[in-house]
Amino acid sequence: MTRTGLYPADRVTLREVGLRDGLQLVKSFPGTAAKIDWLSREHAAGVRYFELGSFLPAARFPQFADLPDLITAACALPGAVTAALTLNERGVEAGLVSGVNEVVCVVSATEEHSQANIRKSCAESVALVTRAAALRAASGGDVLINVGIAMSFGCSIAGQVAPAQVLRLAEACLAAGADIIGIADTVGYAGPREVAALCDGMARLCGPRPFIVHLHDTRGLGLANAAAALDHGAQVLDGALGGLGGCPFAPGATGNVAFEDLAYLCERMGFATGIDIAALAAIRDILMREMPEEQLYGAVSRTGPPRNIDWRA
Amino acid sequence: MTRTGLYPADRVTLREVGLRDGLQLVKSFPGTAAKIDWLSREHAAGVRYFELGSFLPAARFPQFADLPDLITAACALPGAVTAALTLNERGVEAGLVSGVNEVVCVVSATEEHSQANIRKSCAESVALVTRAAALRAASGGDVLINVGIAMSFGCSIAGQVAPAQVLRLAEACLAAGADIIGIADTVGYAGPREVAALCDGMARLCGPRPFIVHLHDTRGLGLANAAAALDHGAQVLDGALGGLGGCPFAPGATGNVAFEDLAYLCERMGFATGIDIAALAAIRDILMREMPEEQLYGAVSRTGPPRNIDWRA
Repeated sequence: MTRTGLYPADRVTLREVGLRDGLQLVKSFPGTAAKIDWLSREHAAGVRYFELGSFLPAARFPQFADLPDLITAACALPGAVTAALTLNERGVEAGLVSGVNEVVCVVSATEEHSQANIRKSCAESVALVTRAAALRAASGGDVLINVGIAMSFGCSIAGQVAPAQVLRLAEACLAAGADIIGIADTVGYAGPREVAALCDGMARLCGPRPFIVHLHDTRGLGLANAAAALDHGAQVLDGALGGLGGCPFAPGATGNVAFEDLAYLCERMGFATGIDIAALAAIRDILMREMPEEQLYGAVSRTGPPRNIDWRA
Repeated sequence: MTRTGLYPADRVTLREVGLRDGLQLVKSFPGTAAKIDWLSREHAAGVRYFELGSFLPAARFPQFADLPDLITAACALPGAVTAALTLNERGVEAGLVSGVNEVVCVVSATEEHSQANIRKSCAESVALVTRAAALRAASGGDVLINVGIAMSFGCSIAGQVAPAQVLRLAEACLAAGADIIGIADTVGYAGPREVAALCDGMARLCGPRPFIVHLHDTRGLGLANAAAALDHGAQVLDGALGGLGGCPFAPGATGNVAFEDLAYLCERMGFATGIDIAALAAIRDILMREMPEEQLYGAVSRTGPPRNIDWRA
């Protein structure tokens, strides 16, 4: 399988997951026009990879009801690459014909979280990947299958998670037909040492294929963990504008690593992102207006990058 | 010179600078009883190194007027090590007889900041270190001379700062009689690469003697930078509870790295601190009560460390 051509092998790619993971649990969410504004302005700021929503019942997840509109809008943006989450076969089927470049499946690193989160065993989740690959083959299309492994760095229900367990699951998902694997610190348990070790293992497992690191900043280590990931072979990192997002199993927890801070970190570490950090940070105004009760996080938006030193990659 | 015995060579030491750097620019500040409560509760939580204030005119810096009371209070806490900032000869003289274990002098990495900050040239600042060493020798005491190099990672006035320039200054300060050197990212310009490179240089320069890394979290990279420092030989790191502090030359900038997050990072990276993180984070209640208009920062205080994995060093 070498379908990971959408992710360049020679540079770091940042994925904006705010429209999906960032809105999973919010009390209010931006309207479709505001979401498209968010998307378009990020695209203008240089962002190219967007997770746009989830294929979930609109009755229970109204925040994702406009996913088709976002896909249409994103497809009109030159070079934009789009992804959407799918939690079951119906979602995969919808995803494959939706126009997204990538469907994202989720597998939990622990049985406990898997049952609590999606009422499936880990094996059933891997079976969905197999099924997704078969459906994709039958479709004749080239939609990427991205599998995110939740709780890769520890589980709020089951506790410690051994890296070997995550790597076995990653290997099973690749064997089942996944194109790219993400390791997710769903509840913000990771430290730099754990990220380094698991990234080393993923780099060995995936060889020349990129893998994704999805970090939450629950306990402040998000960017330290991102730095460790970049130093240990990660080429694709997720973030959400303003640090939106969270997890139902970690009350009070903050969300994803702030996308604007992540982009600044990458540049500061010598990994060119093509992103205009100041323009990106300014897009937080949409979130402040549309989601006034959400606490935003992130630091570089406060003062901007340094004005009189050369910080860009 | 081997007067750095106060800093153990076999473990990481964290210095709480909130009572000094954290109060440098605040609109309001805790009363003496609240400061002593802060100090005592941090001591009970396992913190041992405290920068307590500055020897500065009480008329202009009322927040440090009670420094003698804090020194008395700290000296009563078993194992507490105390420091205070001194910006001139009068301050050094006061420091040497005050009962603190350490006087802290400041040298700027750039002439521009040196003039703007203390109206002295860099050479004049190094001369103060020479004078401090002479006064210390004359006193017959063993007060440590700590020299912090401001703007070590870039200057909001002069821009880029070459590591070689900082290392030359550090060498001059050691030659002048400094016992321990701190490299300070005064305005939060550093990234992990810069921290790693300068720490490598400091480790070569200082040999077995520890050096201090003083980071600000202005642009969110504070903990990523701290992780890089720990990975590159830094054994002493500064922080301030709640991320208090800031710099007059960086409007809107946040302050020091949050002490509680720094302690959590150390533990998570395998460096034992002896600090009870939850107890430390709880002391923020003093800051919230005494400085209600100050924005506090820091993340681990929101959810606490992970409950069901082994995160301690």
